[in-house]
Amino acid sequence: MADPRFYSVRGPFTLAEIADIAGAEIDPDADRDRRFSDVGPLHTADAETVTFLDNKAYVETFAESRAGACIIHPRYADQAPAGMALLKTPNPYAGYARVAQAFHPGEAPEPGIHPSASVEPSATLGDGCVVEAGAVVLARAEIGERCRIGPNAVVGEGVVLGDDTTVGACASLSHCLIGKRVRIYPGVRIGQDGFGFAMSRSGHEKVPQLGRVIIHDDVEIGANATIDRGAGPDTIIGPGCMIDNLVQIGHNVQLGQGCVIVAQVGISGSSKLGDMVVVGGQAGIAGHVRIGDGVQVAAQTGVMRDLESGKAYGGTPSVPIRDWHRQTVALAKLIGRRSD
Amino acid sequence: MADPRFYSVRGPFTLAEIADIAGAEIDPDADRDRRFSDVGPLHTADAETVTFLDNKAYVETFAESRAGACIIHPRYADQAPAGMALLKTPNPYAGYARVAQAFHPGEAPEPGIHPSASVEPSATLGDGCVVEAGAVVLARAEIGERCRIGPNAVVGEGVVLGDDTTVGACASLSHCLIGKRVRIYPGVRIGQDGFGFAMSRSGHEKVPQLGRVIIHDDVEIGANATIDRGAGPDTIIGPGCMIDNLVQIGHNVQLGQGCVIVAQVGISGSSKLGDMVVVGGQAGIAGHVRIGDGVQVAAQTGVMRDLESGKAYGGTPSVPIRDWHRQTVALAKLIGRRSD
Amino acid sequence: MADPRFYSVRGPFTLAEIADIAGAEIDPDADRDRRFSDVGPLHTADAETVTFLDNKAYVETFAESRAGACIIHPRYADQAPAGMALLKTPNPYAGYARVAQAFHPGEAPEPGIHPSASVEPSATLGDGCVVEAGAVVLARAEIGERCRIGPNAVVGEGVVLGDDTTVGACASLSHCLIGKRVRIYPGVRIGQDGFGFAMSRSGHEKVPQLGRVIIHDDVEIGANATIDRGAGPDTIIGPGCMIDNLVQIGHNVQLGQGCVIVAQVGISGSSKLGDMVVVGGQAGIAGHVRIGDGVQVAAQTGVMRDLESGKAYGGTPSVPIRDWHRQTVALAKLIGRRSD
Repeated sequence: MADPRFYSVRGPFTLAEIADIAGAEIDPDADRDRRFSDVGPLHTADAETVTFLDNKAYVETFAESRAGACIIHPRYADQAPAGMALLKTPNPYAGYARVAQAFHPGEAPEPGIHPSASVEPSATLGDGCVVEAGAVVLARAEIGERCRIGPNAVVGEGVVLGDDTTVGACASLSHCLIGKRVRIYPGVRIGQDGFGFAMSRSGHEKVPQLGRVIIHDDVEIGANATIDRGAGPDTIIGPGCMIDNLVQIGHNVQLGQGCVIVAQVGISGSSKLGDMVVVGGQAGIAGHVRIGDGVQVAAQTGVMRDLESGKAYGGTPSVPIRDWHRQTVALAKLIGRRSD
Repeated sequence: MADPRFYSVRGPFTLAEIADIAGAEIDPDADRDRRFSDVGPLHTADAETVTFLDNKAYVETFAESRAGACIIHPRYADQAPAGMALLKTPNPYAGYARVAQAFHPGEAPEPGIHPSASVEPSATLGDGCVVEAGAVVLARAEIGERCRIGPNAVVGEGVVLGDDTTVGACASLSHCLIGKRVRIYPGVRIGQDGFGFAMSRSGHEKVPQLGRVIIHDDVEIGANATIDRGAGPDTIIGPGCMIDNLVQIGHNVQLGQGCVIVAQVGISGSSKLGDMVVVGGQAGIAGHVRIGDGVQVAAQTGVMRDLESGKAYGGTPSVPIRDWHRQTVALAKLIGRRSD
Repeated sequence: MADPRFYSVRGPFTLAEIADIAGAEIDPDADRDRRFSDVGPLHTADAETVTFLDNKAYVETFAESRAGACIIHPRYADQAPAGMALLKTPNPYAGYARVAQAFHPGEAPEPGIHPSASVEPSATLGDGCVVEAGAVVLARAEIGERCRIGPNAVVGEGVVLGDDTTVGACASLSHCLIGKRVRIYPGVRIGQDGFGFAMSRSGHEKVPQLGRVIIHDDVEIGANATIDRGAGPDTIIGPGCMIDNLVQIGHNVQLGQGCVIVAQVGISGSSKLGDMVVVGGQAGIAGHVRIGDGVQVAAQTGVMRDLESGKAYGGTPSVPIRDWHRQTVALAKLIGRRSD
């Protein structure tokens, strides 16, 4: 059960209600009125808890789980322990997401501005906003409805936030227009100058950075990530992108819709990613490259050229993923090892 | 045109004035009195806007640009669209930097200490300083003239800042002496303990870190970068160094003059870089190595040994850059591919 | 000598006292009453200063040092300059650590809550706590004795801190239980949501993150590092772990006792490390892998599989360290180079 120190819980819900929320099927003979009080992990869940199985590495844990119900792909149904109610769906993780949201919809904090926050008179806040202790909202910022500005966060001059957007503790925003339902995590830096200067032995010459950061709706930006503003064009993050912790996004970069950028990735200036691109952790993308829709880039890859839509790449410099695996095998053979 | 929400603009300037600022030549028959109201990117600039071409990848965009004037290398002059005034110089990016600075010299904010800031009585501030909302200046800090301490930033005890230095939102400084005209971006961490301890199975023994961070004039330090103080010697950043976002600099590291350290680079303890060293993004430098003047390190390189002045390196472990390219070709051949 | 602007110093101590603190032997004919006023680096130490030699790369510097005393391994004793008192021990770095702690035990700041800090009435603070300027302590937080909450730091709702724990400037904590004597550096982010969502073309579905971060005693967490809370299970950092700057630790990760995680390492979700694992800088560990006790992972390694206890690994994808060295040699031969 989730620690009540940090989480409140709705419910209980019946098995039938949960199946409905998850979009899952239950057996005809299951007890539709059986009640569940929370979600929880496979190995600690008890008879009142709903769990899920999404990764085949954990099938054994599933087979021994004491959870009262489990959201699973039908293919694992026959390995369920006795007495467990099964919620079968081809997308168990998405089903679990919705059930967990039902039990834990999140708290709506009391609207208001903490007395220790600083909000400039020319800034505007929509109804239902929360400005927490020590937060700073500078001149002419325009904040939508039901936004939450975390403790000691800073919203810079003229910044625009759409409705239902949250800014985490100690994050800072400047020179940016942010959409609706955007989740900005603690320590994020958005809108500072890009890394732009003309190199010279007599002293590098700073180039004024005159663009903005445009963040579309439903984006998530992880803790301590940095997104520089454009040099002249804008830096653009498309709708629904998920950006993990400590990611660096340089000036003028454009991300399409629904991209997934894993932790510690760096994307250099002026590169453009299509829709639904997935970039694995610690991968680096050089400046001025174009990456097509649906490309998958393995962790730690070094991308120095344009990548074709729909393909997967690995290695430094990046090659098609199969070639990268072949290189690994070839290197193993070179030293008399078998790679398996 | 730059978004007036975030940028004010000086001007207009005539073509002759702009040529003078850029150090560029204009054609004898050009209209020297033609007026321009801003700078802007190649693909969006209009007839009243000055743009620039610095990267040959964008020559096509240049040829179709509607910009009224463009700062270019003379070699591209014959590809200019009709009606565009040309500002020819061998260093178009540096020329653009100066023109953009002329249009956008930046705002000088009203000096003063925000009522929500905390400045200890024993701290001193020079004339013309701005201490923004929620900023904290601790005991005995000495801040020069015209410095700007951003919202919720922290200047630690005894820290010294030279004239015209700026500290970004939510940055924190301790145990450091900072020069003039240094630009510290949001979320930077300077002066915390280095990663120093004597390893032991019975518990790692913390080693007190007793040095400082010395940052010379005209340095730029990117968002969420971290620079640890020396263990006994100092950590030293030479004049004019440009350090990008999320860079890690360990204790006792020394950087010479004008080094360029791209995002997410890590430099381990006690390594020494000469002058004008360029380190590409996500490269790592082991501890206790020496890197000569003018060395260029490719992105994602892993440096484990001393590197000779004036040479370029790539790969992990690092090898001369040509050898790294040859390795890439050799690997491609091993698996029956042609590398191109 | 340490800069008095930043460091106060205890002492002086006699050679005999220092030998006792260091657990080192002195020569029978040494002047046991000779007094020393501070510790300092080999190359700047003077006759009143105690230094140490731990890295054979600095033996020449040692031979020319003017330090009055040096903590060394006995094997280097015969290279000492004349007049230097020798403190011989098999563990000179640990000995130095204790001597430096004796000279520089650190300041105990005056307990109290700064008037600009915000502490919610339902939070509790033990005796001797310091809450610095601009710090925020939210509802129901439980803070032990002699804790120090740095300027502009944020302690979230319900967070628990053990005795003698310090939270650096601008750090933020939520959904976590923290042990005793934990040192959290500036800008650290602990307890935010993990990177959990069900991917879908129609919009990635957020998965509520319902676990916590559990940090055991004597852990150190470097500047701007990020530790996400568990998705359902907890994220756990074992006792005595040393985590460097800008490290990313994903949801559900478990670290055993005494692990050393160097700067910019990323550990993906649900991976489990045993005791005393050392991970070199910028290495990446994929999700759901298990790493045995005492494993050593070289800098920039990419770990995608389970690793056996007590062994060392390097390369991407990771291989036993000797195989990685052989691959390096083989690659050098392939292009007609000798690797040395």
